[in-house]
Amino acid sequence: MRQADIGVFGLGTMGSALALNFAEQGVRVAVGNRETEWVDAFLEEAGTLASHIVPTHSLESFVAELEVPRVVLFMIPSGAPVDHMIQAVLPLLSAGDTIVDAGNADFNDTRRRSAALAAQDINFVGMGVSGGEEGARNGPSMMVGGSDASWQRLQPMLDPVAAKFQDAPCVAHMGTDGAGHFVKTVHNGIEYADMQLIAEVYGLLRDGGGWESPRIAALFDRWNQGPLRSFLMEISAKVLLATDPKTGRPAVEVIVDKAGQKGTGRWTVIEALKLGQSASGIEAAVGARSWSSEKELRQRLSHALSGAETVALPTENELEQAFAAARLLAHIQGFSVLQAASDTFDWSLDLSRIAEIWRAGCIIRSALLDDLATALREIQFGASLLEITQFQKTLDATVPALRKVVVAGVQGGVPVPALAALLGWYDSMRQARGTTNLIQAQRDFFGHHGFERVDATGKHHGPWWDVSATS
Amino acid sequence: MRQADIGVFGLGTMGSALALNFAEQGVRVAVGNRETEWVDAFLEEAGTLASHIVPTHSLESFVAELEVPRVVLFMIPSGAPVDHMIQAVLPLLSAGDTIVDAGNADFNDTRRRSAALAAQDINFVGMGVSGGEEGARNGPSMMVGGSDASWQRLQPMLDPVAAKFQDAPCVAHMGTDGAGHFVKTVHNGIEYADMQLIAEVYGLLRDGGGWESPRIAALFDRWNQGPLRSFLMEISAKVLLATDPKTGRPAVEVIVDKAGQKGTGRWTVIEALKLGQSASGIEAAVGARSWSSEKELRQRLSHALSGAETVALPTENELEQAFAAARLLAHIQGFSVLQAASDTFDWSLDLSRIAEIWRAGCIIRSALLDDLATALREIQFGASLLEITQFQKTLDATVPALRKVVVAGVQGGVPVPALAALLGWYDSMRQARGTTNLIQAQRDFFGHHGFERVDATGKHHGPWWDVSATS
Repeated sequence: MRQADIGVFGLGTMGSALALNFAEQGVRVAVGNRETEWVDAFLEEAGTLASHIVPTHSLESFVAELEVPRVVLFMIPSGAPVDHMIQAVLPLLSAGDTIVDAGNADFNDTRRRSAALAAQDINFVGMGVSGGEEGARNGPSMMVGGSDASWQRLQPMLDPVAAKFQDAPCVAHMGTDGAGHFVKTVHNGIEYADMQLIAEVYGLLRDGGGWESPRIAALFDRWNQGPLRSFLMEISAKVLLATDPKTGRPAVEVIVDKAGQKGTGRWTVIEALKLGQSASGIEAAVGARSWSSEKELRQRLSHALSGAETVALPTENELEQAFAAARLLAHIQGFSVLQAASDTFDWSLDLSRIAEIWRAGCIIRSALLDDLATALREIQFGASLLEITQFQKTLDATVPALRKVVVAGVQGGVPVPALAALLGWYDSMRQARGTTNLIQAQRDFFGHHGFERVDATGKHHGPWWDVSATS
Repeated sequence: MRQADIGVFGLGTMGSALALNFAEQGVRVAVGNRETEWVDAFLEEAGTLASHIVPTHSLESFVAELEVPRVVLFMIPSGAPVDHMIQAVLPLLSAGDTIVDAGNADFNDTRRRSAALAAQDINFVGMGVSGGEEGARNGPSMMVGGSDASWQRLQPMLDPVAAKFQDAPCVAHMGTDGAGHFVKTVHNGIEYADMQLIAEVYGLLRDGGGWESPRIAALFDRWNQGPLRSFLMEISAKVLLATDPKTGRPAVEVIVDKAGQKGTGRWTVIEALKLGQSASGIEAAVGARSWSSEKELRQRLSHALSGAETVALPTENELEQAFAAARLLAHIQGFSVLQAASDTFDWSLDLSRIAEIWRAGCIIRSALLDDLATALREIQFGASLLEITQFQKTLDATVPALRKVVVAGVQGGVPVPALAALLGWYDSMRQARGTTNLIQAQRDFFGHHGFERVDATGKHHGPWWDVSATS
């Protein structure tokens, strides 16, 4: 039997799905797992695909089954386990082999590992894989970070397993070292914002309008037929329509309102801050999940903190437009973080290409991303995404509704933190003359920090310093 | 001549001021500086205080002049310079000596340095110093992190130089290792929020109400006579009243609206996120400064992005109440971050004591901190600061005005990101039933993450999984 084209180590949900996907596309795949008994269970699950699968029961035999130069793909928990497995497999590899980390790694770790392994002539690839189990099995969107050589080695195997958008595979080479994992992180950050925005509209309808879940489902389903079409809108309609078999109530009503998070949303916010950016919509989404986890406190506070007036529910059309405005702004913030990172880390990210491979397979796939793929080709060097004509037209038409919806939430006491934070950014960015001149004055007053003048170059201090010098 | 009680190395603005303060209080202080020529200039500036100052022109002589066990205080730029100087001075020190880093260090660095130096029997103290040059010279607020032994060694020298609030020195031992620098970082985070909130009210009055700077100064001055009294309110009134000598215009009008930041605000946000918190008011303040730096883009966008209706300016009383509500919420968020960090790093922070030492000397000193010092004594173990009765009363009285002011900004297109973000938190925290049940449903649908049920323990999945299993 010929050797395997690739080895997938880690047969959890995502690893198993990806290995089966490879096998189905005729890629010979060796599989291994820390708990070796999973391997046989997996082989059984593989059924007729088993003919393309090489089961192995030790790391040594796993590596021995791979064609040289080898490609070892890890789909294991991020963090220490990845460092551990790299150390374990390294003595078994040869110069020119490639290790792929397909988990949700912190891109800082990926950069560190890339540098360390490059010194030993091992290619390290940080690959973001989006689409959940279903995506991994039938076509994920994949963001590859690493050398050109690694990409050339991997592309023939990744193209067939990737999701397709109009026959084009949703996988691309993002840039060197941590580029793939960074782009995946920001994808998830946008996902957080998108989910939070849907939740805020849901909250306005439920708590402000008294709408039942099926009615909200029908509205989201209708939106999903138009420009707001997206996977997240589609599944929101589905889950809102679903009935809990145990109680007969809408399924969402029996779910506790405490949202989990695994780190990528938070990482997006932190990396944005380190880059001097502020992705306020993603910040608000991360915040909302954190606050939701304090369920018992919220229950106590609901009796102790006073509320607000009745909500004047905006029209369906206004809600649709407000959502469109906010979702576009959240995407622009996310892509702006990518732009800043690309400049800082010298990745030459192709923003339009990123939007393209997000049009299928991944969680945020949407009609908007198709628009973005086109619009982002328009962007000039050094320009902001807010300067793209098409976006400005959309915002012109939809921001007035966003204002109304935020006002409804604020007046009615229905939290709309992400909608408000995105509008706050929009309004801040269209202010030729903001208010931080006062902040600069304060800083100069108490810390002698100095400021720029509108009518002269250089650093200046306020007259308060002359006064204190002479008094 | 007897040896010096303490050595201050680094004669920049803050180091010089602190050294003179020590000298004035009768503490014998040896001084040194990387550029040794600064030492003589400093001595000249010291005038009659020179009798308490021991000038030195090399690190060796600087250390030789110190009484054993020695106390070396560095007031130098944070980051690599601190590591560099520690390595340089270490061979000159003996077991039991103390190194104090009085700069604005990242508390993670302080923890790392504490551990490394403890292994060599050197006490490392991370000390936050607030109050700017004026504070350092005449009485700063100081937050000390380190061992009990270090605190006992330092306290007799720090008490006399600290700011006094009703005769009590504003310096205290916060906890071990990074506690002092962490508390200082959060102080600055609250400072960012406080300054941003003032700037937002300024913006509403200027852009929404057409008020001239002196009129705004008069209002802030009036507020500063009441419950809103604070150093930042006081100096806001002062800088708004100041006239630019060159143009005769209000000084704030000739200052460019691009705010600088040195990292502590951003650090607060990042550390809060790492602790599973979200200090939305501080996030908004950091964001506003970042966005302000994109001045040229804002000028271009001001012509391209459409605006809003006219602002319906709230009454002065409503603005005052709204500010009171938001400022209290921002402080609660900051103290909540301290509480979370205390639990995580086992610092046993005394929140009431922190409020006490912030009542004088530091930038955020205010009447509110006096109230906080009292109110924080009420807090029960495991309770949230939002459950303090006095805070709830204040919020009850002032949040309705905060709603009105946010609505005015949102409708009128005057950015109020921090005011809105704080209200968003308030409204989220008083929701017994939030909307992340929908987010949990989405996550289970696409990622099989599972959720908690309201009527059963354990982890559950939605009916969409049964459907997909049978279809």
